[in-house]
Amino acid sequence: MQIDLYPSAGQIPAEEIRGRVAVVIDVLRATTTISQALANGAAAIIPVLTPEEAHQAAEANPAQAYLRGGEREGVLIPGFDLSNSPLEYTPARVSGKTILFTTTNGTRAIRGAAVAEHVLICSFLNVPAVASKIIALGLDVAICCAGTHDRFSLEDAACGGALADLLSAARPNATLGDLAFVSREIYRQFQGRLLDLFGVARHGQTLQQLGFAADLVHCAQYGTLSQVPVFRDGQVRLG
Amino acid sequence: MQIDLYPSAGQIPAEEIRGRVAVVIDVLRATTTISQALANGAAAIIPVLTPEEAHQAAEANPAQAYLRGGEREGVLIPGFDLSNSPLEYTPARVSGKTILFTTTNGTRAIRGAAVAEHVLICSFLNVPAVASKIIALGLDVAICCAGTHDRFSLEDAACGGALADLLSAARPNATLGDLAFVSREIYRQFQGRLLDLFGVARHGQTLQQLGFAADLVHCAQYGTLSQVPVFRDGQVRLG
Repeated sequence: MQIDLYPSAGQIPAEEIRGRVAVVIDVLRATTTISQALANGAAAIIPVLTPEEAHQAAEANPAQAYLRGGEREGVLIPGFDLSNSPLEYTPARVSGKTILFTTTNGTRAIRGAAVAEHVLICSFLNVPAVASKIIALGLDVAICCAGTHDRFSLEDAACGGALADLLSAARPNATLGDLAFVSREIYRQFQGRLLDLFGVARHGQTLQQLGFAADLVHCAQYGTLSQVPVFRDGQVRLG
Repeated sequence: MQIDLYPSAGQIPAEEIRGRVAVVIDVLRATTTISQALANGAAAIIPVLTPEEAHQAAEANPAQAYLRGGEREGVLIPGFDLSNSPLEYTPARVSGKTILFTTTNGTRAIRGAAVAEHVLICSFLNVPAVASKIIALGLDVAICCAGTHDRFSLEDAACGGALADLLSAARPNATLGDLAFVSREIYRQFQGRLLDLFGVARHGQTLQQLGFAADLVHCAQYGTLSQVPVFRDGQVRLG
C-alpha cells in the first residue's frame, strides 16, 4: 500500500490519484461539517464551487427544497441557510435535506479528487471508520488535504497523519511519501491533544479570533462517527 | 520575527519574500555542494537554469576558465567537469575557480528566491552560521526549500526546521508558519540522526540506490562549516 499526502486543493495531481482511494480532508471545517451533517440525517451534500452555483441550482429546482450551506471568509454567505459551522447542522435543521455546499478550500479539494477510484470524506470525527474502509478496499491511498488558500495547513496534515498512522499499523509494509511520513509524526505528537494542535495552527488561530471556539472543540473530537461519507456522481452520501 | 517555510522551488511566492532574508535549502545535494565548494576555496558559484546556459557562458568567456558542475537525473551532465557530489569539489579541483552550476531543483530555488532582500545558501553543514547571520540581519525569514520536482522533500524541510529551531530559541517571540512549525518538530525528532532521516526520505533512498552513500554521509554533517554563502548579482560567494 502506497500512502501519499497532498498539501492543498490546488496540488492534487490527477494523473497520480487515478485508480487510488482519495481521502479529502478539511478539518476546519468543511469535511467535519459534511461528516456531522450526514450523521445527523442529511440525505446528501452537493459540493459546488461558488455561491452563484448554489443559488442557480436551488432556484432551478424549487421542488427539491435544497438548503444552502458554506462560507466565504469564514462566515455565512448572503442568502444561505447555514454557515460552515458543524454545530448548525443539527438533526432538526438537516434531517432528510439535501444541502448545496460551498467553502473556500474544502469543496475545491473534493472536486479535485473526483478522478480517483473512490473519494472518501474524512475529519478527526471519522478517521477510524475511514481507515477501516480503506483497508477493506485495499487500494493505494491519496490523502488530499484542502489546505488554506493553496498552502499547507497543519490541522489537515495532522488528520491525514492520523489516518496514515492507522493504515501503517494495519499494513506494516505500507510505503509513505515524505509528506505522509511527516504528517504521521506530527499527529503522533499531538495525539490526544487536538485542541493544542489547533492552537498552533494558523487557521485554528484565525477561527479562534473570529469567535468559533466551540467549533474548534467540536472539530477536535476523535472517532465519534462510525460512518464514511463518499463522494460519487456529484453528491456526498454515507457509503 | 516571522518564519515561513516554502516546500519547493515552484512554490516561492515573490510577493511574500520581498524585504525578507531568504534561505535556500537543497540538502541532497546542491546547497551542500555549493557550501562545501566555497569552503574549499572556489571563488564563486554561478547558478544557471540549464546545461545549455552553462555551455554558452563557458564558451563565451574562455579566459575565465569556468568549471561546469551539476546534475541531471542525479548524474554528471555531458561536457561538464563536476557532478553534484560535494566530495568532488576538493580544494585541488575548485580553489580559485568560478563554477557554472545547474541542478534540477536547487538552482531554480536560488533564482526564485532572488527577489528577497538577502539570499543565503544553507545546508546542514552551515545551519548554525546561517542562523547567526539571520539574527544579525533581524529581518523576517523565508525558508525556500528546493524540494524534488516541485514536491515537499523531507530532508530539505528538516534542515529548514533545524534553522527554525535555532532562530526560535534565540528569538522566543518568533512566529512560525504551519510548515515551519512542522519542520521544526521533524528536525527535533531526527536531531543527531540525520542519516536515519535520509534513510526515510524518498530522495535519500534514491541517492542510496544510485550509489551515493558517501554523499549522504557528507550531507548529514551538522555545523562543520562556519561561513555563509550569499547569492547576489547572479553569483554565490562567501558573505
